[in-house]
Amino acid sequence: MKIDNIKPGEIEKRSFEIIESELQREGIILPSKYEHIIKRCIHTSADFDYAKTMYFAKDAVEGIVEAIRNGGTIVTDTKMAKSGINKKKLEEYGARVECYIGDEDVATEAKERGVTRSYVSMEKAASLKGPVVFAIGNAPTALFSIVELFKEKKIKPAGVIGVPVGFVNVVESKEVLIDSGLPVIVNRGRKGGSNIAACIVNAILYNQ
Amino acid sequence: MKIDNIKPGEIEKRSFEIIESELQREGIILPSKYEHIIKRCIHTSADFDYAKTMYFAKDAVEGIVEAIRNGGTIVTDTKMAKSGINKKKLEEYGARVECYIGDEDVATEAKERGVTRSYVSMEKAASLKGPVVFAIGNAPTALFSIVELFKEKKIKPAGVIGVPVGFVNVVESKEVLIDSGLPVIVNRGRKGGSNIAACIVNAILYNQ
Repeated sequence: MKIDNIKPGEIEKRSFEIIESELQREGIILPSKYEHIIKRCIHTSADFDYAKTMYFAKDAVEGIVEAIRNGGTIVTDTKMAKSGINKKKLEEYGARVECYIGDEDVATEAKERGVTRSYVSMEKAASLKGPVVFAIGNAPTALFSIVELFKEKKIKPAGVIGVPVGFVNVVESKEVLIDSGLPVIVNRGRKGGSNIAACIVNAILYNQ
Repeated sequence: MKIDNIKPGEIEKRSFEIIESELQREGIILPSKYEHIIKRCIHTSADFDYAKTMYFAKDAVEGIVEAIRNGGTIVTDTKMAKSGINKKKLEEYGARVECYIGDEDVATEAKERGVTRSYVSMEKAASLKGPVVFAIGNAPTALFSIVELFKEKKIKPAGVIGVPVGFVNVVESKEVLIDSGLPVIVNRGRKGGSNIAACIVNAILYNQ
């Protein structure tokens, strides 16, 4: 077993070279428009399934880029996703990231109405000024809620990153999101996570 | 496609039932002592590989449980892992979680010495009072550093959760950690992540 005596600043570059060479060996060619995003998902998870399951609605990436450049808000469903997003880079564009899941009023309202906190969190995001991008890595109910609020013309997100992970309503929530016609980036199937939601935002940020 | 009309509080229970039934279908029997941890890794990632690759050193779980009950400190290598750990539950035992990666003195020292910030972070943890558990989901260098500091008798961690993810020195760092003889929980191979590090801490917390 040989330990690679690599400089800290070169680890990421080398990692992406390994990912690229393994994709080539498998004969997988990623769409060039999205390869920076898909490769970062593989980098974050060490899971090559992402090469096959990522879905990009037309203009979704452009919508998210524009929202960031116009000082928009990224709304996440978990503090973990918020914490994984490069806030320094985001601030360079005057953009920011918010997460309402821990807010006391959200918890109270969710309990009263018998719905999840993530549902109420998405409603709360509806009152934001400026473009909004949702980055959802955990809660299928957040995706259902976004689609519902969009259909009721209460929100019009510039983009939705829909990558919850799990076993109950996760697959279904992603298909409902795709069918909504919103500008979405989705990882079809069960896989995803707060780390994946954050890394997709970062991939877009780093590619500008 | 049928959406499961399930109450928010029941989603986790149902998820674990699905995981259990799929494991059974595959004929996989998890060691009962560790199944709460392995299943939570699968729950966090939707990746059944964790059923095959998790490694538990003798007494590692007990060491971590004891450290938490004695008001110890969980030290993570990323803010994301810190953010994923249930701090309310941790505080019930008088324990806490720290992450030094963003500290200014760590960044300065790492730059001066030409090492990674995670290396210096682990050194910083050596000065803590009381039992320390490392939860490492990102940086292989953090694992190398822990083993080195242990061999130099500068630290004696109550447990090390070693689950970095990635392509450069990740597999190697985990084997070095296992060979150290420390009380470790490791996911062998490339997979892991900050979310996995956090979920292992939570699995242990929820099982007490």
